[in-house]
Amino acid sequence: MIGIDYSNMMEEVIGINGISDLSIKNISSQIENAYNMIANREWKQLEFIDLPSQDTAEIKKIARYIRKSADNFLLLGIGGSALGPRAIIEALSPFHNLKKKPRVFIYDNVDPRTLKSIFTVIDLKKTFINVISKSGSTAETAASFLILWDKMKRALGKEAFRRFIITTDPEKGNLRKIANDEKILSLPVPPNVGGRYSVLSPVGLLTTEVIGINCNELLEGASSIKSICLKNDVYKNPALLFAVLLFLMDKEKNRHINVMVPYMDSLKFLSEWFCQLWAESLGKGNKGLTPYPSLGTTDQHSQLQLWMEGPQDKVVFFIKVNNFGTDIKIPAVFRNIEGYNYLPGHTLKELINSEQEATELALTKAGRPNFTINVPEINAYYLGQLFFFFEMATAFAGALLGVNPFDQPGVEEGKNLTYGMMGKKGFEDKKKEVYEYRKRKGKWKI
Amino acid sequence: MIGIDYSNMMEEVIGINGISDLSIKNISSQIENAYNMIANREWKQLEFIDLPSQDTAEIKKIARYIRKSADNFLLLGIGGSALGPRAIIEALSPFHNLKKKPRVFIYDNVDPRTLKSIFTVIDLKKTFINVISKSGSTAETAASFLILWDKMKRALGKEAFRRFIITTDPEKGNLRKIANDEKILSLPVPPNVGGRYSVLSPVGLLTTEVIGINCNELLEGASSIKSICLKNDVYKNPALLFAVLLFLMDKEKNRHINVMVPYMDSLKFLSEWFCQLWAESLGKGNKGLTPYPSLGTTDQHSQLQLWMEGPQDKVVFFIKVNNFGTDIKIPAVFRNIEGYNYLPGHTLKELINSEQEATELALTKAGRPNFTINVPEINAYYLGQLFFFFEMATAFAGALLGVNPFDQPGVEEGKNLTYGMMGKKGFEDKKKEVYEYRKRKGKWKI
Repeated sequence: MIGIDYSNMMEEVIGINGISDLSIKNISSQIENAYNMIANREWKQLEFIDLPSQDTAEIKKIARYIRKSADNFLLLGIGGSALGPRAIIEALSPFHNLKKKPRVFIYDNVDPRTLKSIFTVIDLKKTFINVISKSGSTAETAASFLILWDKMKRALGKEAFRRFIITTDPEKGNLRKIANDEKILSLPVPPNVGGRYSVLSPVGLLTTEVIGINCNELLEGASSIKSICLKNDVYKNPALLFAVLLFLMDKEKNRHINVMVPYMDSLKFLSEWFCQLWAESLGKGNKGLTPYPSLGTTDQHSQLQLWMEGPQDKVVFFIKVNNFGTDIKIPAVFRNIEGYNYLPGHTLKELINSEQEATELALTKAGRPNFTINVPEINAYYLGQLFFFFEMATAFAGALLGVNPFDQPGVEEGKNLTYGMMGKKGFEDKKKEVYEYRKRKGKWKI
Repeated sequence: MIGIDYSNMMEEVIGINGISDLSIKNISSQIENAYNMIANREWKQLEFIDLPSQDTAEIKKIARYIRKSADNFLLLGIGGSALGPRAIIEALSPFHNLKKKPRVFIYDNVDPRTLKSIFTVIDLKKTFINVISKSGSTAETAASFLILWDKMKRALGKEAFRRFIITTDPEKGNLRKIANDEKILSLPVPPNVGGRYSVLSPVGLLTTEVIGINCNELLEGASSIKSICLKNDVYKNPALLFAVLLFLMDKEKNRHINVMVPYMDSLKFLSEWFCQLWAESLGKGNKGLTPYPSLGTTDQHSQLQLWMEGPQDKVVFFIKVNNFGTDIKIPAVFRNIEGYNYLPGHTLKELINSEQEATELALTKAGRPNFTINVPEINAYYLGQLFFFFEMATAFAGALLGVNPFDQPGVEEGKNLTYGMMGKKGFEDKKKEVYEYRKRKGKWKI
């Protein structure tokens, strides 16, 4: 089971910058209240909690069909539709596209240069395409879908429809209509599971199976931590504890930046997945915590200076992996170079874990709060635990902060202005607004 | 030439959250002072300013030698030694390893799983290795170098030394000694150019040539903006202006997080390069600004909610690319789907640039300060401008904040503790300290 060591968050250990059991006690009714909001399903979107027990037969069937004939698997989606699948591939099948088939490409933007690059390296005739959008109306995904639909029709004629898999709302939206009209294979995003909480739905599970990993292992991992993340005791529930620690550090110490530092390359995209979850769920009403994606040891040579001696506005949390599944011994060469001869005999795993501990201790000595999430190893099972843990922690944090962790009202205006500029019916005012804006601009320019 | 439009930073445009020409005027003596520190070369490490006029003949010669016979080019380095080269590859040769030879791998960690993965996809007999460490004593780079030296010896015997290129201090350090002893090809990192300011030195230029791009174009770009970035006028010098804007937003408005959002996939790693530069240069003495790496349109579905409605602690700056060098038209398919029929006829470039403008305007309407760096197109020339511009801006920002933008004292303690754990001579105390620390820990655990 994953665990948290939060000694270095405590006043007794790091002094004045720490929090105390008393400060936790002082907000016990707030914690109780937040706990109840989640346990009693205050928001209907808490249905992600039920995902571990879903039936995966249809997902597996579609994945088998894809694996049988695909050289390439192209995923069209953005935000939660892309970040979860990418975190899974990178964590569980590093260097996937150089080693295995089908290769997986995730197009989560509308950058023409990237799509052109993808077209130069894939043969569309051997490509399957997964279009993911819960609402079915995401502009970026719609644009790339239209382009790929047209291209595939040209490449494969009437058979093109067999190469698409649509993942969307089971009943509503443009994509559902198209899936029905064109008889395209499809998978559901449960209506009460939001995009950023959807990694353990077909959104993440199909890709998992396509890269040759049993998606039930992800669900079993999630399932194994579910009851623990629902315990009504901050000292026994790691998700609630995680939320409380970071909530208190913000409230009492004005530390509102939460730096996530896995010490394993392949978890870099887990950081990006977490950053969406934490940022979009909590950042509203002038509140929120800013998640920061980082990577050890790499960012010791990039960000560490700022964490150690910069403004007192951060909490650093490490993800330390105990078993890398492999290791490499540092050989006894260049023994005449004094500056190197402490290395031979050790292994890379010893070095990376020593550096993690050294960074943790250095921060602690400098009075900079930090804590460590310990993970036995990285496989689908523990990755499932991590996903579920972070999702529960985010829900608790939303309840503690007093915001709705399931909406994102702040992105609507940008969407509407885009619709205006692109000439969508009903958004003529927005287009006008942009034109007015352009006229106003330009005085301060260099 | 790249340019800045900073209208949306100004009080006249965004209201109370903006700054004014008066606030710039009020710190004019501070600006003058900062300007003089840089122009008068207060720090010797400002020598990066001279890099645009370096001789690249030796770099080109070595690159030709590598390109002639390498299938793979493996770079061992961390921090500035890796971030610059990676930013160059991603910006100038997207999907490089799926399209071109030699493939480039950057190993900038000590994760055994990653190195094992690299070994499974490259044939060492057809691999050239670039070891980059200015000091020659970086533990991570030393460890991977020892491993690769041993492996290459086994694979190639006496010829192994011909497959290494060492980039390090021209006179000092372990790597320089090894290069001399073993007659290994080498390139210099100029002594007065720090790692994070070294992208336009052989550190970045060799990789540029190896991927088939004329490194002189990077230098010409840098050269073209050099005199502009040395103008003694905040309204005419974009680097000084960038520093002043973000300095004032911190000082006057407590906005200390600087979000960098390029609207082009291949600039994602330019963000990471900038983040090291800005974080490690400025984060000291409890001061500093926190750079945040982001990407448009992708992070509109991840971070935008937080920028729009979260705490008032951020300034967002966009990098908008005018010419993508390519474009893709959205075809007229699914015209019966009302929700999609605003898209056909437009192109992806129109969509991505509309989204950038929409996000900019949405932030502005919400009174959230932002500005835009306009880039004509992404090629080596303009990338050189961007590198040089950001380096100069960082130097000015350090001078304004009153910190030394060229040191990183905060990372020493972590290094020393690592040395202790790894048994390096002279660090026995540090080892003891770690053991004491382990005993103390563990009370707060879940």
